[in-house]
Amino acid sequence: MSRSVEEHVHEVAEAIRRAARRRAQDPPLLRPVTEELTGRLATPAVARLDVPGFDNSQMDGFAVHAADLARADIAPVTLPTVAHVVAGDARPPRLDPGSVAPIMTGAPIPLGADAVVPVERTGAGEFGPVDGGTLVEFREPVEPGTFVRTVGADVTSGAEVLEAGAPLHPAAIGALVVAGVESVEVAPPLRLAVVGTGAELVSGAVPDSNSRALAAHARELGLPVTTHLVPDDPDLLRDVLAQLAAGHDLIVTTGGVSAGTREVVRQTLEGTPGAWFDHVAVQPGGPQGLASVRLGDREVPVVCLPGNPVSVLVSFELFLRAPLARAAGRVAQRPSGSALLAEPLVSPAGRLQARRGTLTADGSVSLVGAAGSHLAVSYARADVLVLVPEHVTALEAGDTVEWWRIA
Amino acid sequence: MSRSVEEHVHEVAEAIRRAARRRAQDPPLLRPVTEELTGRLATPAVARLDVPGFDNSQMDGFAVHAADLARADIAPVTLPTVAHVVAGDARPPRLDPGSVAPIMTGAPIPLGADAVVPVERTGAGEFGPVDGGTLVEFREPVEPGTFVRTVGADVTSGAEVLEAGAPLHPAAIGALVVAGVESVEVAPPLRLAVVGTGAELVSGAVPDSNSRALAAHARELGLPVTTHLVPDDPDLLRDVLAQLAAGHDLIVTTGGVSAGTREVVRQTLEGTPGAWFDHVAVQPGGPQGLASVRLGDREVPVVCLPGNPVSVLVSFELFLRAPLARAAGRVAQRPSGSALLAEPLVSPAGRLQARRGTLTADGSVSLVGAAGSHLAVSYARADVLVLVPEHVTALEAGDTVEWWRIA
Repeated sequence: MSRSVEEHVHEVAEAIRRAARRRAQDPPLLRPVTEELTGRLATPAVARLDVPGFDNSQMDGFAVHAADLARADIAPVTLPTVAHVVAGDARPPRLDPGSVAPIMTGAPIPLGADAVVPVERTGAGEFGPVDGGTLVEFREPVEPGTFVRTVGADVTSGAEVLEAGAPLHPAAIGALVVAGVESVEVAPPLRLAVVGTGAELVSGAVPDSNSRALAAHARELGLPVTTHLVPDDPDLLRDVLAQLAAGHDLIVTTGGVSAGTREVVRQTLEGTPGAWFDHVAVQPGGPQGLASVRLGDREVPVVCLPGNPVSVLVSFELFLRAPLARAAGRVAQRPSGSALLAEPLVSPAGRLQARRGTLTADGSVSLVGAAGSHLAVSYARADVLVLVPEHVTALEAGDTVEWWRIA
Repeated sequence: MSRSVEEHVHEVAEAIRRAARRRAQDPPLLRPVTEELTGRLATPAVARLDVPGFDNSQMDGFAVHAADLARADIAPVTLPTVAHVVAGDARPPRLDPGSVAPIMTGAPIPLGADAVVPVERTGAGEFGPVDGGTLVEFREPVEPGTFVRTVGADVTSGAEVLEAGAPLHPAAIGALVVAGVESVEVAPPLRLAVVGTGAELVSGAVPDSNSRALAAHARELGLPVTTHLVPDDPDLLRDVLAQLAAGHDLIVTTGGVSAGTREVVRQTLEGTPGAWFDHVAVQPGGPQGLASVRLGDREVPVVCLPGNPVSVLVSFELFLRAPLARAAGRVAQRPSGSALLAEPLVSPAGRLQARRGTLTADGSVSLVGAAGSHLAVSYARADVLVLVPEHVTALEAGDTVEWWRIA
């Protein structure tokens, strides 16, 4: 039965989510916390340090005993300074009541002090070097705790920094470093196999650009990928898929899925348990398949894309990129928006049309190349996909269209 | 003079654009066309093959002489088939007038044939194996060229596939492969140096999470990066910056830019030609600087970020990520949108506030952590930045806010 785009998006995403969940049951990888971390945490990361490590000042100003300023709004209070406290000072001296300590942002709060008054709220004016014994005037009371960053406010030693499954993006790496976490258990990454099919690829009559483009997408997401080429031979393809299932978590094929007489992927997998081959309501990329290969207790999904280069790239964007990015701990969404169309277009009834375009300086979108699914070079010059909804059959210049950024 | 966010975005982007342009004058790197290509082309890539390489069918159907069907709408025309043409057939036989050739999508058009009639528009019905000598009925005329993909329609051998500067994303790699391009000249990548400053980092009292997070961002964009740590010593920092300028194209410092008494970056660079240090109307991340280091005829921009972890990450997102991504040939935009706020917030007048949040299943956005610039762990748990405009000082639950995806 043919499917809407939403149905196929859902089915492929579910298959990849299940594959990722199975893969996550393999032993985690112990990795040092460096900028090279990618993927997702397999187990929670636990703080080895309090963050912040000590009470410190949120402002440049003066560390004070709040009680000293209780009536400063009634009569200004003038207090002498002790030595300046700067960031990097390991153990500031105790601050006695009746005195204040000039303090820099991030510097440790002296023992005894319980609040910070920013320099601009005092009579000290501009903040220059302040020697001990200088007199500073305060005109307002201050609540205890004001502008004090409390030890452990962000996370305390022994508490969870990031939960199992958390993506290891740059901010996560920063958080692990600041919490003193030196190594983490990373979920093993989803292993992709890309299988190009077709006699014209095996003979070299047509270069296998699809496998290279899909492998490049996987690499950009940080996922390991291998590429393979199989002629139009169902027995051979069956063997190759079984072999690949042993060391991969997801197989993506290109070609051989439509209704012709030599459709090797369809002929090999149609009729296997749970397999689906039919049309998705999209142009290009209508013929699609989704099956799986069982090998002992392993069940490896096989996402079967059509063979035309543009169909492959559009299919990747619509069906594969988001769930793969999610599995890889990357941002799943593409930037999207709407813009005025610079020229008219026609679109088939009942199908989402994905055209290629460029966003121009004036904020409109121009089409690149025709609707044809073989225009791989035109695709590479585009920076957006223009998505024309199923019910729309024609648009005029100046009509609003939705776009997804692809470059 | 203090700056709006827009002004500083523009100034930093311009500095990085100039750095990338200077770097592009260094000798290009000759690279094989594989899925590992990244960055941008240094010189145009020229097709070595026609794409498509031969006239081929856009549909499963029958290759015909259009002239044979000129009057098929008046009286159906029944014609005999010759042998089936499949994709991968190198040289199909000449098709004589008065006969038709069953043909698969992508298969070469037989010499003499000039159009393809899709199987569903003929009397052949479902497309099964069709032997030579089968009779097929046609009921409509067809324009010459219909459903024929013409040799070289996408690009012709010798023509430009992609221009100098084109990003080498997965679709570009596919286009180069399909056009037979085996190697390309790649622009050398922007080399980043990240310099953490502060006695508390050098002493180890506070782990240098900023450098790790910034290096991870650079790696994610495919840019080479080195990290360095310098104490609060202007002479030492001056020497380190001069050394780094020799082998890097952009320097990013953290810490030492605000108005305190020990602000090593500001003290080192303020007053040098073109240097700017002041506030940007943003919270967190207000204190910022932009300067440059001259070394002979090299001029290397130094983007000076504040030292608090959240300020660093927010500053990276607002000022650095897009121009660096652009230099690296990656998608520069973050996905963005608007959502209903799940809880109230307050924001300083006259400043863009960047809060951290998560998008919930119901489509609203919840805040993660307080506004404080030291909450690095909270930042790592967020998946969006919530951007509160300068003129807004308070929002209620249910108000609409803009967000940027960061995870």
